[in-house]
Amino acid sequence: MSRPVVHCITNAVTAARVADALAAAGADPILASGPEEVATIAAAADAVVLNCGTPSNERFAALGAAAAAARAAGRPLVLDPVGCGASPWRTAAIRALAAATPGAVVRGNAAEIAALAGRAGPALGGVRSLAAGPAELQALARAAHARFGGAVLVTGAGTDVLADPTGVCELAVDATVLGRVVGGGDVLSALVGAWLGRGLDAAAAVRGAHAAFAAAAAGAATRGPGGFWPAFLDGLAAGG
Amino acid sequence: MSRPVVHCITNAVTAARVADALAAAGADPILASGPEEVATIAAAADAVVLNCGTPSNERFAALGAAAAAARAAGRPLVLDPVGCGASPWRTAAIRALAAATPGAVVRGNAAEIAALAGRAGPALGGVRSLAAGPAELQALARAAHARFGGAVLVTGAGTDVLADPTGVCELAVDATVLGRVVGGGDVLSALVGAWLGRGLDAAAAVRGAHAAFAAAAAGAATRGPGGFWPAFLDGLAAGG
Amino acid sequence: MSRPVVHCITNAVTAARVADALAAAGADPILASGPEEVATIAAAADAVVLNCGTPSNERFAALGAAAAAARAAGRPLVLDPVGCGASPWRTAAIRALAAATPGAVVRGNAAEIAALAGRAGPALGGVRSLAAGPAELQALARAAHARFGGAVLVTGAGTDVLADPTGVCELAVDATVLGRVVGGGDVLSALVGAWLGRGLDAAAAVRGAHAAFAAAAAGAATRGPGGFWPAFLDGLAAGG
Repeated sequence: MSRPVVHCITNAVTAARVADALAAAGADPILASGPEEVATIAAAADAVVLNCGTPSNERFAALGAAAAAARAAGRPLVLDPVGCGASPWRTAAIRALAAATPGAVVRGNAAEIAALAGRAGPALGGVRSLAAGPAELQALARAAHARFGGAVLVTGAGTDVLADPTGVCELAVDATVLGRVVGGGDVLSALVGAWLGRGLDAAAAVRGAHAAFAAAAAGAATRGPGGFWPAFLDGLAAGG
Repeated sequence: MSRPVVHCITNAVTAARVADALAAAGADPILASGPEEVATIAAAADAVVLNCGTPSNERFAALGAAAAAARAAGRPLVLDPVGCGASPWRTAAIRALAAATPGAVVRGNAAEIAALAGRAGPALGGVRSLAAGPAELQALARAAHARFGGAVLVTGAGTDVLADPTGVCELAVDATVLGRVVGGGDVLSALVGAWLGRGLDAAAAVRGAHAAFAAAAAGAATRGPGGFWPAFLDGLAAGG
Repeated sequence: MSRPVVHCITNAVTAARVADALAAAGADPILASGPEEVATIAAAADAVVLNCGTPSNERFAALGAAAAAARAAGRPLVLDPVGCGASPWRTAAIRALAAATPGAVVRGNAAEIAALAGRAGPALGGVRSLAAGPAELQALARAAHARFGGAVLVTGAGTDVLADPTGVCELAVDATVLGRVVGGGDVLSALVGAWLGRGLDAAAAVRGAHAAFAAAAAGAATRGPGGFWPAFLDGLAAGG
């Protein structure tokens, strides 16, 4: 399948960036989020990405409906628990969504995954990652994987950690500029959707998407935060 | 009128891109979408653009209210049937909106216009265009124009086709990079609104906006998808 | 505090631009707007920015809830009355919000501040500023400051005017390109939030944020509207 259709239900902040990245990577993004049609579209897409940023009860209803339709139709799912921990309401709603998507690829930063897995009560830190050492990240990824069953990718501290049925490994990414830009995690989660939509299993899709992301980020690493995304997209398209 | 006010009710993905393009082209964008005020704003604007991306029932209510107010006040309208065909609910709602906006300029890709006109049941393809030959595009534009009464611009395959009261013609655009970026159609529809807002009739506004779009796209055609939009906006502003 | 968390409830058009600017300036943006959680997040943030663009009754409910929670928790507030005057409904809702946020920093263009203060009935002009001379701007800023009690920054005509408890002063900014881009005001308002979040008082925060904004804008002033924001963000990050 050369151009997978990736259905992303996503937040108001990075919707354009996510769509741009999917298109640059050779996928066809569709970002429908109306509860009236998300089930139809999720069932027909090649992969579905559930991004929990800027949520509302209506958005969670759409996320839940898309998740159910995708599971019923056998479509692969990615769950991005954006800002999990930022409010008790959000944490509870994301946990409920995660419980309804066993086997999904989960991609979040350390604070989000910790809140999702109930291992910590991180202080509010916007949507930026907690500082955490490699051993902590590995333990966190392992625990979340044991709980949610799919693949879990914990990102944000220079070395990312993946726990999947084959074990735990580190995935390198040059995070020089990623601390001063917005949407890196959202874009990576969406790219995992594109790789899943091409028919790869979870472990291969995460590795493939992460490698493409890391290569594009490395090629743009000398830019400031303004020049980063244009250079990233150009690199992503050139490598795709 | 040097700076037309263009009221766009648009989707969550390309709202910024559309506003950027209108401002670069010397128009004043206003993207209000609240049902509480869209009628007031549409009636006072110089042109109104109805973009159907990322819809909901609430959004369609706003689109309908703006359309009615614009018609009552004699404001020109552009209808962009984004993703028509993606779900039966969306298709029905866009068809109802089109029925309420006779004489509007309609701008969509081949899949969207076909679904709008009831000529085909396109497979889900995100919001990307169907492949279609020149003769098919001309027949499609002609049929849609006969049905909706205004001007119909079918885009997306390298050569765009316009059917208006003066006949059918082809409009050239370099689509090298347009297949890997998001929002080209949304931007073009919005620019038609800007040209209508300057007082041109439908046929002249479509030709003027398309020429400006094509020139800016050509000037940016050697860029990758990341560099495309900045270069496009610079070219649009320089030519405006 | 090195990385203040800035909670922005903002519009659909410039959300990404605002978040990008906050991150480039070394702040952690969080743009939650769900009525279900805004009070929790506003109370925990270091500053709260209330941007009134693309409003709805639901958005105003969220803005009001965040404002109340921020006041109760002693968090500094910025009010950006985007498009005040565009409809009677919007004007009334923003005035009610302003009445509920005494002491907030208010940042708007001349048309918006005039409509907010009830001094004029500006014609619809998108969200672009009215032309106004320096004396008019000073009188306007003074009147608005007398009414709302906090600091008032009127922007958009090349020289911006600040009225705060220490008096009235002009703040210079190179507006060469700002007339053809979207979101300059939104970004400036958000940056004021970042400076407030670092613990500065209103007068110092406005001056600090404005100086950083003006320096980044000056460094990008030779760009077209497409190249402006990337260059602005790079300059903002380099200076921060």
